[in-house]
Amino acid sequence: MLGQIARRLGQLHGQQICNGLNGVRFKETHRHLQSSFKTVRPISTIPLWPFSSRPRDFSQPNSSWSPEMRKAYDHYIALCDTDNENGEKTKGPWRKLPSYNRSIKYATGGIHLSKFIQAENRLFTRSVKEQGATFEYVVFVNKEEKSCVCVFQSGRLLEGAPGHVHGGAIATMIDTVTGTLAGYLSGPIMTANLNIDYRNPMPLGSVVLIHSALDRIERRKTFITCKVTSTDESKLYTEATALFVSISVGHLFGSRN
Amino acid sequence: MLGQIARRLGQLHGQQICNGLNGVRFKETHRHLQSSFKTVRPISTIPLWPFSSRPRDFSQPNSSWSPEMRKAYDHYIALCDTDNENGEKTKGPWRKLPSYNRSIKYATGGIHLSKFIQAENRLFTRSVKEQGATFEYVVFVNKEEKSCVCVFQSGRLLEGAPGHVHGGAIATMIDTVTGTLAGYLSGPIMTANLNIDYRNPMPLGSVVLIHSALDRIERRKTFITCKVTSTDESKLYTEATALFVSISVGHLFGSRN
Repeated sequence: MLGQIARRLGQLHGQQICNGLNGVRFKETHRHLQSSFKTVRPISTIPLWPFSSRPRDFSQPNSSWSPEMRKAYDHYIALCDTDNENGEKTKGPWRKLPSYNRSIKYATGGIHLSKFIQAENRLFTRSVKEQGATFEYVVFVNKEEKSCVCVFQSGRLLEGAPGHVHGGAIATMIDTVTGTLAGYLSGPIMTANLNIDYRNPMPLGSVVLIHSALDRIERRKTFITCKVTSTDESKLYTEATALFVSISVGHLFGSRN
Repeated sequence: MLGQIARRLGQLHGQQICNGLNGVRFKETHRHLQSSFKTVRPISTIPLWPFSSRPRDFSQPNSSWSPEMRKAYDHYIALCDTDNENGEKTKGPWRKLPSYNRSIKYATGGIHLSKFIQAENRLFTRSVKEQGATFEYVVFVNKEEKSCVCVFQSGRLLEGAPGHVHGGAIATMIDTVTGTLAGYLSGPIMTANLNIDYRNPMPLGSVVLIHSALDRIERRKTFITCKVTSTDESKLYTEATALFVSISVGHLFGSRN
């Protein structure tokens, strides 16, 4: 059932990725979700859209974006479509992923899920309403290269050392971006390890690129590498590796005790 | 000069710790700061208190704290003072550290600092005003054992997977707590590495203990270990190691380019 919802969402938004989870990220395809949820209410008894309006994509340009942020965004948006030999538009190698302020709010309805879906909860990276105050970011994925890049602008509420971004905020973005890629490639996964080397302090307000790529997949383990650089890639801020393990969605819900 | 300010602050607040920096944490003793700042305005030209009121300590109990949070807090508070043989109060092995929403706001005035101190910036872990919505935490340090423990209650805006805490929020608290201990032991330091193993997903709203201890100090490197457990310590959520390198404060400010 959730698979059906996900498929319908997919018609609106393309392949639906719920990124930025604990921990846990879902590639909401019916294959994964149908196998994960055994006991759910019939589709006819629940609304497909728990909220009246179409969900807001928080990774759209807004007035808080600096010219550098907009330039990097435009660069990757341009790579999302290419002209073929006949001058026709075709799908480019990159794809922009949408980003919401809830992880699975728009695919609710399962009785397993209902007790975990609290209306007042918000996804950590999208929880502050003031535009530009915390995390402004957009993720582009390259399916063929099994990689993704995130354009990230840090806001005034992410301060650590005076004038610089908190190491935890950088870790949060690394978890989000590497987890998005792992979920895209491997389905439902949970963060098992993050190993982060901080090479240079990042000035608050910086726009950076977070490059993530698949290292390898070994059975249930998905290994991702990550580098955070300036937008011209001349300066390295952070390097990281991340390990994710594939789970069933039921694993997460069963863990609550 | 900053050392003088720090000393005066110390008279009010005990030893002043600025925790939760990038990156970078300062143990604001005059020894460190006097050696780090060469060019500063004379003490007479700047106010000792840039703001009129005494800074608010965000690690005091408030109405958002659950009974479990309050119980853990009371447990460690009770260990901060002990009765000696004569029935007199003496300093206990543990000490509660204050926590502010700016890292160095209360020791401003240096011309090196002034351009980095932006009034609208806020420390990442204390940047949301709504009590209980994000990070509620208090850090206790044990000088003799070279360890500290943080009581942490996660709020509704820290969600990752539905009903669970975002891995980045957990990383943020680990960076904050291990960095506080490293700064307490080694003076100004910068996070060089965080290596985090996520063992179990953490339900949103949980109260957990973040235990940090010194592993070893090798020249400029301070190695810290960390475990995140339930308050009864029966459940392990996360394990981590952290490496910090000692820096001069000027190193940070020189890094801006």
